[in-house]
Amino acid sequence: MNTFDLDAVTARLRAFAQARDWEQYHSPKNLAMALAAEAGELLEIFQWLTAEQSDPGAWSAETRAHVEEEIADVLIYLLRLADVSGIDVGTAVDAKITRNEGRFPAGG
Amino acid sequence: MNTFDLDAVTARLRAFAQARDWEQYHSPKNLAMALAAEAGELLEIFQWLTAEQSDPGAWSAETRAHVEEEIADVLIYLLRLADVSGIDVGTAVDAKITRNEGRFPAGG
Amino acid sequence: MNTFDLDAVTARLRAFAQARDWEQYHSPKNLAMALAAEAGELLEIFQWLTAEQSDPGAWSAETRAHVEEEIADVLIYLLRLADVSGIDVGTAVDAKITRNEGRFPAGG
Amino acid sequence: MNTFDLDAVTARLRAFAQARDWEQYHSPKNLAMALAAEAGELLEIFQWLTAEQSDPGAWSAETRAHVEEEIADVLIYLLRLADVSGIDVGTAVDAKITRNEGRFPAGG
Repeated sequence: MNTFDLDAVTARLRAFAQARDWEQYHSPKNLAMALAAEAGELLEIFQWLTAEQSDPGAWSAETRAHVEEEIADVLIYLLRLADVSGIDVGTAVDAKITRNEGRFPAGG
Repeated sequence: MNTFDLDAVTARLRAFAQARDWEQYHSPKNLAMALAAEAGELLEIFQWLTAEQSDPGAWSAETRAHVEEEIADVLIYLLRLADVSGIDVGTAVDAKITRNEGRFPAGG
Repeated sequence: MNTFDLDAVTARLRAFAQARDWEQYHSPKNLAMALAAEAGELLEIFQWLTAEQSDPGAWSAETRAHVEEEIADVLIYLLRLADVSGIDVGTAVDAKITRNEGRFPAGG
Repeated sequence: MNTFDLDAVTARLRAFAQARDWEQYHSPKNLAMALAAEAGELLEIFQWLTAEQSDPGAWSAETRAHVEEEIADVLIYLLRLADVSGIDVGTAVDAKITRNEGRFPAGG
């Protein structure tokens, strides 16, 4: 069982921002920018790699740690954005996957 | 209690990709691009808004639905990227928040 | 000889913004967001393509027109950003290439 | 008169890539990623700034130098992308501005 508890992580991130008086910076606009900047750091890892080099089986330990860190950074800003926006991430993802299942029927 | 079950959503997304024979496209490099492109769509929502207009209390229903959808799109590609990379998202986020707590001590 | 006249294009873009009363939206922060959102649209063109399919010789006329349009969009926001920032693009690029030549000596 | 000579800068960037045997990395797909990653670094400069702090008159010398450098980086990858794609940047920008003038008529 995966131990990821979305509510607990969201609450921890909110407390982190509050304790540093950073909530003033965490407007949806600013958080969208921070999320996109972190997505840019993910791109930077892969931008010069061939399809083969981009394969996780070919990564160095350093590359793996780097990818993990950037994935975490993107998710942290995503959860902050959802929190300040009053958006339930689980509901949003569920609705979007259901919509995609309708838009792109599987072949049969 | 939040019903978001990371493992179940990850498995659903994997099955979705398999059923459409899309796993061939889902290299980490390509998924990082797709994630960043969706982050760009989030930016587009907020780019011309003032700080006040960016406030969730001021959003139209249409803006709210749009933000929800783009948050879902980013998370979907993030979870696919983590899945194909063999990265545990919960562990990665936990490690990063703990590191941030050390780097940015709260004032006292 | 290439007819691109940076000053003339910059002036045309400024006049375009003034005539629509859009200068109020063109803060450096907002223009950086718009530029990054357009960069995201460039990514979207290429995200699922193999290295071979990404080759310009393999593009459809539609893909070519799309790439041209997104390149133009990125450059338009870049020139607006430089203009409102009082940055001379030619000087900035020249300085950066010279720095890169020092940082990455060519093999011999 | 602005001394920016698009053809000369494009040729200089091509020679730079050739001398380092980097042309193999400069597919349109990879260059689009590098461009978007640099756009992300521009975002990072502005992400926590208020509208007032984002004003160029309020920048420190360090911020100004940073913005200049990131603008240069974006433009460098944009020119490389246009070069490998056989796209004339001046024509593309001219066509797009003309189209925008039609789409967004100025008030009268």
